[in-house]
Amino acid sequence: MSSNEESSSVEGYRGQALKQLKQARATIGSKIQLRTNDGFETTGLLIPRYEHADENHIVLKLKSGYNLGVDASSISSISVLEPPKPATEVVVPLISSRTDKKVLLLSTGGTIASKVDYRTGAVHPALSAQDLYAAVPELGEISKIQPEVIFSTYSENLAPVHWQKLAERIVATPAEGLDGIVVMLGTDTLAYVSAALSFALLGLEIPVVCVGAQRSSDRPSSDSALNLKSAVRFAAYSKAKGVYVAMHKDESDDVIAVHSGVRVRKNHTSRRDAFRSIDVAHVAEVKGSEIYFVTRPRILNEFNHEEDKLKLKTRFEPQVSLVKFHPGFDPELLDYFEAKHSKGLVIEGTGLGHVSSPTVAKISNLTKKGVFVGITSQCIWGRVDLNVYDTGRDLINAGAVPLEDMLGETAFAKLSWALGNFPRGEVDEIMKRNLAGEITSRTPPK
Amino acid sequence: MSSNEESSSVEGYRGQALKQLKQARATIGSKIQLRTNDGFETTGLLIPRYEHADENHIVLKLKSGYNLGVDASSISSISVLEPPKPATEVVVPLISSRTDKKVLLLSTGGTIASKVDYRTGAVHPALSAQDLYAAVPELGEISKIQPEVIFSTYSENLAPVHWQKLAERIVATPAEGLDGIVVMLGTDTLAYVSAALSFALLGLEIPVVCVGAQRSSDRPSSDSALNLKSAVRFAAYSKAKGVYVAMHKDESDDVIAVHSGVRVRKNHTSRRDAFRSIDVAHVAEVKGSEIYFVTRPRILNEFNHEEDKLKLKTRFEPQVSLVKFHPGFDPELLDYFEAKHSKGLVIEGTGLGHVSSPTVAKISNLTKKGVFVGITSQCIWGRVDLNVYDTGRDLINAGAVPLEDMLGETAFAKLSWALGNFPRGEVDEIMKRNLAGEITSRTPPK
Repeated sequence: MSSNEESSSVEGYRGQALKQLKQARATIGSKIQLRTNDGFETTGLLIPRYEHADENHIVLKLKSGYNLGVDASSISSISVLEPPKPATEVVVPLISSRTDKKVLLLSTGGTIASKVDYRTGAVHPALSAQDLYAAVPELGEISKIQPEVIFSTYSENLAPVHWQKLAERIVATPAEGLDGIVVMLGTDTLAYVSAALSFALLGLEIPVVCVGAQRSSDRPSSDSALNLKSAVRFAAYSKAKGVYVAMHKDESDDVIAVHSGVRVRKNHTSRRDAFRSIDVAHVAEVKGSEIYFVTRPRILNEFNHEEDKLKLKTRFEPQVSLVKFHPGFDPELLDYFEAKHSKGLVIEGTGLGHVSSPTVAKISNLTKKGVFVGITSQCIWGRVDLNVYDTGRDLINAGAVPLEDMLGETAFAKLSWALGNFPRGEVDEIMKRNLAGEITSRTPPK
Repeated sequence: MSSNEESSSVEGYRGQALKQLKQARATIGSKIQLRTNDGFETTGLLIPRYEHADENHIVLKLKSGYNLGVDASSISSISVLEPPKPATEVVVPLISSRTDKKVLLLSTGGTIASKVDYRTGAVHPALSAQDLYAAVPELGEISKIQPEVIFSTYSENLAPVHWQKLAERIVATPAEGLDGIVVMLGTDTLAYVSAALSFALLGLEIPVVCVGAQRSSDRPSSDSALNLKSAVRFAAYSKAKGVYVAMHKDESDDVIAVHSGVRVRKNHTSRRDAFRSIDVAHVAEVKGSEIYFVTRPRILNEFNHEEDKLKLKTRFEPQVSLVKFHPGFDPELLDYFEAKHSKGLVIEGTGLGHVSSPTVAKISNLTKKGVFVGITSQCIWGRVDLNVYDTGRDLINAGAVPLEDMLGETAFAKLSWALGNFPRGEVDEIMKRNLAGEITSRTPPK
């Protein structure tokens, strides 16, 4: 995002498009009407040209929230219907009254919660509840929305302390009268946050849907509006307990996949369908106003643990690390974690969960000092198995705990939660136990 | 692998299968003939029952190298044709003379290079050249084979120092008269090794094919024989320059995918088709005796750099680390690398290549001291881009080098190679430059 305050009235446009906009005296944020040579006519707000976009297109934000790019060479006329409104004048009702569903919409920052300032062209994190809701006003047709900004932070800066604040905020809301909760997040660490919330919110009676966007709302290819609308729909209507992630299912712009919050991963840097369920099918799909369950609905509610000791435990231990093993890995790096009084490590081993022999010896030192060491695999897919080769058995003897097919990122979030809420003596058992679907098994737990 | 020397003559068998084997006085390693109730008849060496296999099956190693499991309850008779041969009596010609192709077969250890001792049932790393070749004698029908054991090590213990020895061994062999080289490796770090060799062997005129096995040769589902035969075939006949990885294409047992050594990843802990090309198609497929090119053959030879400074540079710098960023990452961990006189780091950032703000500051400290810091993405698929968000631009200003869509593992191996062979002043340019297909681009380099 750029925070420079450029004041050009037709930010980013060049060539033929710039010439036509200047002739029409159109400025960014104006409501304009375009006509093309072949009779097409459309109305929308002129938005800044995205820097990588084709310079021959003029981009309008339509009333639906979608952006439309029109080839400048095909345009026969441009009329300005209304001048730009100052941003502070945007006032929308916080709660729409078209439906009786009610969703709490929490924003933490990230691409999805950013908005373009039509006067300046700069992309800003949304700072007010009004901004949030104004970004996609048709949310009101799906559910009453209670918007609230919790943080306004790039997600690479969200740490376990933020997970805790977010979980505490959710637990503080009376679930009564609320159908679901949507959390807007940056996609960079969204899957870490969804995993963290999955554990912290065990026992919550309503769905929590984490959602982000890979392309900001000023880009014609933005996935922001559809992701958000679908997340709100799943939160309002699914009646599924647990924490989910809603993002584009594929490169088309019509189906949203809803993933389990503990089995999902950001598997691409930029594609809209970057998020994928690992080793399991995704849970559901949202297409238009319909929700299709892919996983049997029974599964959705089976991790509603009745044990009080697991319910709504919102603390996270910050002294936890995720470490990727690699060839030539320096075993003394583990001494560093001991010196820093680390409480726990998740090590992404190779293959079935292996590390080099000198590293095994250092792991033994750590576990003797009470540090929890869990093993996942950097392969991503598949299950660790420390019973096949000598290295695995040596790891078991060194006190390392194999974490089945838990994703490394999920294991890291779970460990921070387990160490934050339970005595050390209970942590091994909690880490090995399937609490929220983070361990897949042939026979689902009862 | 188990190294215990159990002496049971029918190792691992139980129940009905054990009873039948005892009645026939068959011992492990015997050549036996089985007849079933429905008239099926087969002959092979009795091999130990794999510990996880169904206990009702008797497993024979057929002359073809494949293992066959026969349901004990369907067997009408078992005859012992020959008693077990002492292992030391296995003598095979090192070089077969059926074809005029010649392949150097190097073994470093791992599942593929292990053999079952039919007398004891234990799985051992192959220790002699004879063992290696004896494992799949029909290799001689494909090519003359010159087998040689370089190491006998689990691949999680192979470090850059081993990569260097392996590269030096290959460079020391006169390529003249040799059609290709096959390197047998453990799968755990196979893709790191294939990447390392891709750089160290730039300019080599013959193909080098890395190959492993996900299931050891004593298991009925072993992929060892087919992977090895296909690797030898590609090495002998493809005339492709560069370093490749040959492994099962899918769960069926008939097609082998040949991947570029710099664009491949072990993406599953246990499946036979664990290896996948990332962001590119695989290079070729081997099906029976045929090689089908998926990538245009032109591409296979275009990285044959004529620059002498890049050719056959076999050194690797050990003081290099691969670090995965995560939420709550301790920025002071980077001080540790500085204190240990690290020469270079590859950091797997989130999304487009981001890390937290305090981590950016520590990266700046490192680069000022001359430590190379490269950025890849933990998403695995897609390209890093440090020009989209503030965090990325801050990283550029801190001296970090974005490594395009290079895989983290490949970037780590390349950095060890670059720092091992070139002055620090040239390393940034070498890391940013596409040398072996490690960076994909819309317009392939000339």
